Amino acid sequence: MSETQYDLIIIGGGPAGLTAGMYASRARLNTVLVEKVATGGQILITDWIENYPGFPEGISGPDLSDKMLEQAKQFDLHFEYGEVEKMALEGDVKSVMVGDKTLTAKAVIVASGASPRTLHVGEERFHGKGVSYCATCDGPFFRDKTVVAVGGGDTAVQESLYLTKFAKKVYLVHRRDQLRATKILQERALENENIEMVWDSVVTGMDGLFGVENVSVKNVKTGEEKKIAADGCFIWIGILPNTEFVDESLEMDEWNFIKTDANMATNIPGVFAAGDVRSTPLRQIATAVGDSAIAATMAEHYIQGH
Amino acid sequence: MSETQYDLIIIGGGPAGLTAGMYASRARLNTVLVEKVATGGQILITDWIENYPGFPEGISGPDLSDKMLEQAKQFDLHFEYGEVEKMALEGDVKSVMVGDKTLTAKAVIVASGASPRTLHVGEERFHGKGVSYCATCDGPFFRDKTVVAVGGGDTAVQESLYLTKFAKKVYLVHRRDQLRATKILQERALENENIEMVWDSVVTGMDGLFGVENVSVKNVKTGEEKKIAADGCFIWIGILPNTEFVDESLEMDEWNFIKTDANMATNIPGVFAAGDVRSTPLRQIATAVGDSAIAATMAEHYIQGH
Repeated sequence: MSETQYDLIIIGGGPAGLTAGMYASRARLNTVLVEKVATGGQILITDWIENYPGFPEGISGPDLSDKMLEQAKQFDLHFEYGEVEKMALEGDVKSVMVGDKTLTAKAVIVASGASPRTLHVGEERFHGKGVSYCATCDGPFFRDKTVVAVGGGDTAVQESLYLTKFAKKVYLVHRRDQLRATKILQERALENENIEMVWDSVVTGMDGLFGVENVSVKNVKTGEEKKIAADGCFIWIGILPNTEFVDESLEMDEWNFIKTDANMATNIPGVFAAGDVRSTPLRQIATAVGDSAIAATMAEHYIQGH
Repeated sequence: MSETQYDLIIIGGGPAGLTAGMYASRARLNTVLVEKVATGGQILITDWIENYPGFPEGISGPDLSDKMLEQAKQFDLHFEYGEVEKMALEGDVKSVMVGDKTLTAKAVIVASGASPRTLHVGEERFHGKGVSYCATCDGPFFRDKTVVAVGGGDTAVQESLYLTKFAKKVYLVHRRDQLRATKILQERALENENIEMVWDSVVTGMDGLFGVENVSVKNVKTGEEKKIAADGCFIWIGILPNTEFVDESLEMDEWNFIKTDANMATNIPGVFAAGDVRSTPLRQIATAVGDSAIAATMAEHYIQGH
């Protein structure tokens, strides 16, 4: 195999990247992890996590991120901070341009994550204080509360149904006068007496002293505005993979998530993907660490077998 | 959907079963977990785990198992102790016979794990004291040590190569005079100066005061016996899925591991598999929890959509 600076380059420093980094450096692969700003990824803005196995008391996102970082650092993982500008992934030497540096390696794991599409009505102010993008993660915190949900696709409807297991009332705000979700889910939602549809409407803002108290909604047909008193707001208007920098040669699904097989291998030999950036049925910390253990092990096998 | 006693039955109480139980009961599925003896599975006999993300100081298997059990219990998970005798998985009502009880549910997750095939030379005495079945898990504990490895297939050769990153010497004991592993791996192993092949031989025993000190080896052609001074013994002579009780209608691979798609769904609607029992490229705690988060979420969607 040709000479390279590193054995493995990992792109992204969330739970997926840190786990891949820990596995790979523990397996004595000379590994560099590239991160834009600070390691942690989306869990940095996650107030409280109670469904990552091993923490019965729950743990804050930043604390879990710190632990994962500390663990990854024990095994001589290298770090490079900066934006990935470009990558050349074909062939035996993969190169990744970070700022004005070029890193080379035998294998690459893309673990750059994804970001929920936001409403742009100032909801960032209420992250961890009532605004959420994940019912599986945060639904149980809204027992007997009232919430507003936003969206009309499969995820929005499925997650709204899920929320009714906890919340006493879910207002589902959708900009059209019918849902896009599959028929059976639509029926379930429309039949559910704890879901009230708010048709033809968009969320224009939210307010509250220490957390969400009201969500402002505007009817796009009549122009009428109103405030819904609610303890939370779940936003499901799409999720965007962080794949702007990714080579077009890498096969992606219709939403630009990277396609892999069960080994986390992409269509390019020696290139793997793990975590939220992958085309996957579920995006959780538990699935990110599972993906990454596989990706790092398969990268090791790939390098060993080359 | 027809009336059933439970929404979901989970078979197995290792990391996979406990995670599925936590996710499902947190999602307010009325869930029962069936376990033979005690929850924990294979990690109960795992001395020290340093590659489960979130525990930079490492954690003992029993401690991690306790934490996962405590976490699962917070959300009203039911437990049933006993052997699964039979199951009937087709149709809307799944039933699982545990001893003389019959449990019914809308969905089933099989998370019954797998067990490494053992040498039957009394190596159980050295579990966590030098005997291991997983180089990815335990290899780094053997830095600059001498180890004996047993086997001749892909796993044995791949893992022996991996071990040379840590151990100064690996004796690879194989009962034949050539390896079964893929050509490239064979070549790598035979070229590696830290691997010494012990052909035509089987391990007949091991001894040591506080841990493995010697591994006894017998040449099956000459009958000659010798003792190899070693700090550890890695055994890779196969892994057996715990699928004796599993319905023949469930599709399995050639080694009887259960086949699933990316959603952890088996060929039977409403039946899922997760963790070591699944046909999967890697068997780690990290992968078990990832699988199970998906299986439980997909079981929830299945029940919601029915």
